[in-house]
Amino acid sequence: MARRPTLEFWYEFASTYSYLSVMRIEALAAEAGVELRWRPFLVGPLFAAQGWNSSPFNIYPAKGRAMWRDLEREAARHGLPPISRPDPFPQNSLSATRAATYGMDHDWLIPFSKAVYRAEFAEGQSIAEPPAVAALLDRLGLDGSMILKAAAAESNKMRLRANGEEARSRGIFGAPTFLTEDGELFWGNDRLEQALAWAVGDRPGGLL
Amino acid sequence: MARRPTLEFWYEFASTYSYLSVMRIEALAAEAGVELRWRPFLVGPLFAAQGWNSSPFNIYPAKGRAMWRDLEREAARHGLPPISRPDPFPQNSLSATRAATYGMDHDWLIPFSKAVYRAEFAEGQSIAEPPAVAALLDRLGLDGSMILKAAAAESNKMRLRANGEEARSRGIFGAPTFLTEDGELFWGNDRLEQALAWAVGDRPGGLL
Repeated sequence: MARRPTLEFWYEFASTYSYLSVMRIEALAAEAGVELRWRPFLVGPLFAAQGWNSSPFNIYPAKGRAMWRDLEREAARHGLPPISRPDPFPQNSLSATRAATYGMDHDWLIPFSKAVYRAEFAEGQSIAEPPAVAALLDRLGLDGSMILKAAAAESNKMRLRANGEEARSRGIFGAPTFLTEDGELFWGNDRLEQALAWAVGDRPGGLL
Repeated sequence: MARRPTLEFWYEFASTYSYLSVMRIEALAAEAGVELRWRPFLVGPLFAAQGWNSSPFNIYPAKGRAMWRDLEREAARHGLPPISRPDPFPQNSLSATRAATYGMDHDWLIPFSKAVYRAEFAEGQSIAEPPAVAALLDRLGLDGSMILKAAAAESNKMRLRANGEEARSRGIFGAPTFLTEDGELFWGNDRLEQALAWAVGDRPGGLL
């Protein structure tokens, strides 16, 4: 049987549009016959490098208002629960991202990631504090405090930083981002379908 | 016969994604049974107000690289000619926007707008200098130099400024933007289909 093409899915726990992709990507990838590689990372350092000390949706209020309304519409369109905003926005995603980085070697990465986003944007809960992250892990039948301890190890923190460097060096500037095996970059939940099509070899007319 | 719903289409001549919408919107609006109101405007003053002195695609190079590649893919997907980049980017759109503002009372606004974008992004020509704008008008069988003179009148410049103020006061922060009669704002070429659906009363499940 031929190897299935792979799509890398780079997501950030504080990102509203990453939430939409996290909830949609499994079914769409299965349908397309694409293997996913889930890549949790922090966009904060990328934003800081371009001079932003918060989400652009806070820095530019008109853009932020439009984003929240768009997110409500898109959630409704995709059959997701009504959006419930966490306070503050964006949530500090360091603890969740450390846990997810550690989870890249474990089979709970995907259910954990979905649980974080559901708590944050469908239930409006804080996911910033380590106890909140531990509780989400516990609810999956895992040992949350053990995992957070392992996730705080220097080797895991270095891996998280290395992932951030990899993101920047591969042209990533925001989340969600999809990267195909031949290096094609698709930014934003709106490009999920096109990224999957590209991954299986469907190129829009005439493009190489 | 019932009045057809109207959608306002706010576009900026320097904007790459406005180009895609300009080329797609007539057929889609006709199919949806929606009347269009074409609203040329300048995003420069809005960008300047949030501290940008150029296109965000220049200020943030990784974002810019991804945008140009995305534009190539999207143009191919929509059956448009290969993208040809004007130099410099963004083009100074003041002269074209003055002409289009004057054209809001004339039946050549739409063909003129399409001609500007085609020259700029399909042929990579400069549309910045008044003679280039006059030539595009001439090619439509109009009197370009007469129109540019009328467009430079104080009343037309005031109208252009008033349109910019209106854009800001109605929540517009970029282009293209679509505004429905009930004030729903959709930003970006990716939302053209949803904006038309909203205009005819199709709301995503559960939304008011």
